[in-house]
Parts: sequence; structure tokens; C-alpha cells
Amino acid sequence: MSPDELEQELRAIGAAQYHDRHPFHKLLHGGKLNKGQVQAWALNRYCYQSAVPRKDAALLSRCHDRELRREWIHRIMDHDGFGDEEGGIERWLVLTDGLGLDRDYVISRKGALPETIFAVEAYVNFVREKTLVEAVASSLTELFAPKIHKERISGMLENYDFISDDVMQYFKRRLTQAPRDAEFALEYAKKNARTPEAQTAVLEALKFKCNVLWAQLDALHYAYVEPGNIPPGAFVPGEA
Amino acid sequence: MSPDELEQELRAIGAAQYHDRHPFHKLLHGGKLNKGQVQAWALNRYCYQSAVPRKDAALLSRCHDRELRREWIHRIMDHDGFGDEEGGIERWLVLTDGLGLDRDYVISRKGALPETIFAVEAYVNFVREKTLVEAVASSLTELFAPKIHKERISGMLENYDFISDDVMQYFKRRLTQAPRDAEFALEYAKKNARTPEAQTAVLEALKFKCNVLWAQLDALHYAYVEPGNIPPGAFVPGEA
Repeated sequence: MSPDELEQELRAIGAAQYHDRHPFHKLLHGGKLNKGQVQAWALNRYCYQSAVPRKDAALLSRCHDRELRREWIHRIMDHDGFGDEEGGIERWLVLTDGLGLDRDYVISRKGALPETIFAVEAYVNFVREKTLVEAVASSLTELFAPKIHKERISGMLENYDFISDDVMQYFKRRLTQAPRDAEFALEYAKKNARTPEAQTAVLEALKFKCNVLWAQLDALHYAYVEPGNIPPGAFVPGEA
Repeated sequence: MSPDELEQELRAIGAAQYHDRHPFHKLLHGGKLNKGQVQAWALNRYCYQSAVPRKDAALLSRCHDRELRREWIHRIMDHDGFGDEEGGIERWLVLTDGLGLDRDYVISRKGALPETIFAVEAYVNFVREKTLVEAVASSLTELFAPKIHKERISGMLENYDFISDDVMQYFKRRLTQAPRDAEFALEYAKKNARTPEAQTAVLEALKFKCNVLWAQLDALHYAYVEPGNIPPGAFVPGEA
């Protein structure tokens, strides 16, 4: 494949497998969830948000290319914050605060679904263990993130009286951060995956990452949409 | 042990095992090496310098404490640079440039001694695999670094006509960076290693790190001080 054909294949994976197509997101953005269900989503998604800096540090930890490390490190700061910049994880906690969840409980991850933790840690381990170009390619879901963030901002603000503009700052910031990061990662993958084997691996890396995101919504949908499915120990709306 | 007793034990390890006591350093600082031997030292030590950001990223990659990550990340930037700040690795390359070594050859690590690479990668893996407090404690050789850097700056400037002030900037910068970092890591270890098992592990972590540094000088001393010991493929003064 030429680099541009690789890009087309990557975009086709997003079109088919990105989690904007998941039924749970349609419920979330369409105002079909109650507050407890939105709490469950935000609490579980915190596990993903808070793992992103570890994932990006795992990438740096096996990267011998100083220029790539210098470029990539800002992703850790975007999420963790640095100096006066609060960072994305703090902005996510503003959302969970706004939803009435106890911050220490959220950070403890004790109420998260086991599937959430498994999926998130599988992502950290993937980046730690696979080739560098696969690790970079696994971030390419960010190519498709602005669309879902825009839908989410408008859908959630419109449909839920417990969601206000202040608590949606995480998504607003990502509208500018994600495209810059995705563009860099896409060019890196196109430039560095030049054999059929490497290109296949890059496509598989993006599919893997789509699965990481999709599986989290499967678990939320199973546990919180139909009654009676919340596993032992997981967050129960109204009880935390 | 109380936290202060632990600190005393840590400092005693430094006094006994830090590589300022190694015969190779006495030769280096005392002006007893020729230019080729100083080149061999700088080229091998580059492998250590360039691994430090990967080591610190490995620590971040397994750290679930956002506050600790926010504190620790500046170490990566100190070495890799960030934005306009060139960073310690670049300053090290100014030293190897000044010694007349080809920069691409240095960065390739192809001329490094196998023992150097083994020791350095053992350090990265230690930080990746051990407990967080052990990973932090393994950085505590920085408690003893300012003394050796001062000796090195004065000794090398005084004793070698091929060493000028410009190429010693790496060490000058570390005189302010290392004490700040060491102080933080020491307080972290004292606060977080409160069981006998954890305290023993912290002491062993510092011994391990002293070994990582010492072994690199053993290898240099063996290969470059007595004639005839340079292993196949390693840097040969006058040939690179």
C-alpha cells in the first residue's frame, strides 16, 4: 500500500468500528439515559482518562528517538497538567464532581466495572509491548474524536438538565488537542509503516484500540441499561 | 528504622559504593587519561544519559498517582529538552562533539561496550518492574552527584587541554538540577518505605543503582586502560 492507501484503510476502520456507532453512545448523546447512568459512564470513563498518561509514558519509555519523545511528551502534560495548567484528568473530575460523584471514590476506581479496567490496562500493555509504530497507531482513534466530542457537547447540553457548560470543558479542549495529535501520529504511521507486515500491524493496532473503546461501552450497556446486571462491587446509582 | 535512620543508611551506601570511588574516575579527574580514553568514557556515558528519559518515562508509565507524575515529568524534560530548552542529552553531545567524536556514531551506540548497554538497560528494566518506591529510590545516586560533578568540572578543565568550559555545561546544569531532584526522591522514599521489607528494598535499590554506575566504569577501565582489551566492534580511539 502507498502511504495514502494506508490512510484510507485507517479511516475505513474508524468509519466501521469507532465507538461513536455504539448503542450506548446513541443513548448518552440522545438524552435517553438517566443521571445514574450518566454517572456510571463518567466514572468508568475516568479509568480510561487517567490511564492515558501512563500509556503515553509507556510509549516514551521504549522510544530511543529523542525527537519523537520531545514531540510526544506534551500528551502527558495535556492530561496530567503541568504547572498552572490543570490538565484533562482534572477537567474530567470537574465533570464527575458536577454529576455529584465523590472525587475520592472516582479516583479509587473501586466502583468501575472490571471490564473497564481490563480494557484500559490492555491498552497500556499494548503500547508497552508492541512495536513503536503500532504503539503510535493505537492513538489514531483521535482522528475520529472531534466528531464524537461535538455530538456529545451539543447532545448532552441539550438533553440533560444536570449537565452544564462548565463540566463539558474536557471535551471542548480536546476539540483542539486531538486533531493536532492525530495528524502527527497519522504522518508518523504513514512514514514508518512501509512493509506489508508493518502496515497490517498498524491497521490491527487501530482495530485493537477501537475494541478497547467499544468494549467499555458494551460493559456499560450490559450493566446499566437493563436492570439487574450490575456486577458485585461496581457503582450502584444512588448508593455512592 | 525511622525515616531519618533510613536516610543515614542510604547516605552510608553512597559513601561506600558511589562511583566517585572508582579508579577510573580518579584517572579521569586527575588528568591521567589520554584523549582517546576520555572519548571512550564520553561515548559510553552517552548511552546512560540517553536512557535516563526512558527510565523516567518507565516510572511514569506505572505510576497511578497524578501528583507524583506531575512532579516527576520535569526530569524527562531536563534530559530531552522541551521547546527552546535543549536538554541534558544535547549538552552531552556538545561534549562528545568537542572531543571530536562523530555525533551520529555516538547516538547509534554502535561503539559502546556491551557491558555499558547491559547496565543501562538493566536500570530501565529495574524501574519498569520493581515497586514504585524502589524505582524512586534507584534515582538517589543523585544525592552524591554534585560532589563528583564539581570534582569533574575542576579536574577536567585543569588537566586536559582538549576540554574547555563550553563542553562542560552538562555538569554545570546538573549542579542545580540534581539536588532538587534528589531531595524530592529522598523525602518520597522516607515517607513511603515504612515497613522493614520496604526499607530493605529501598536500600537494595540504591545499591543496585550504584552497581549500574560502577559496572560501567569497570568495563571502561578494563577495555581502555590496559592495552589489548577492547572487545570486537567497540570504539577504538583514533579509528572513529
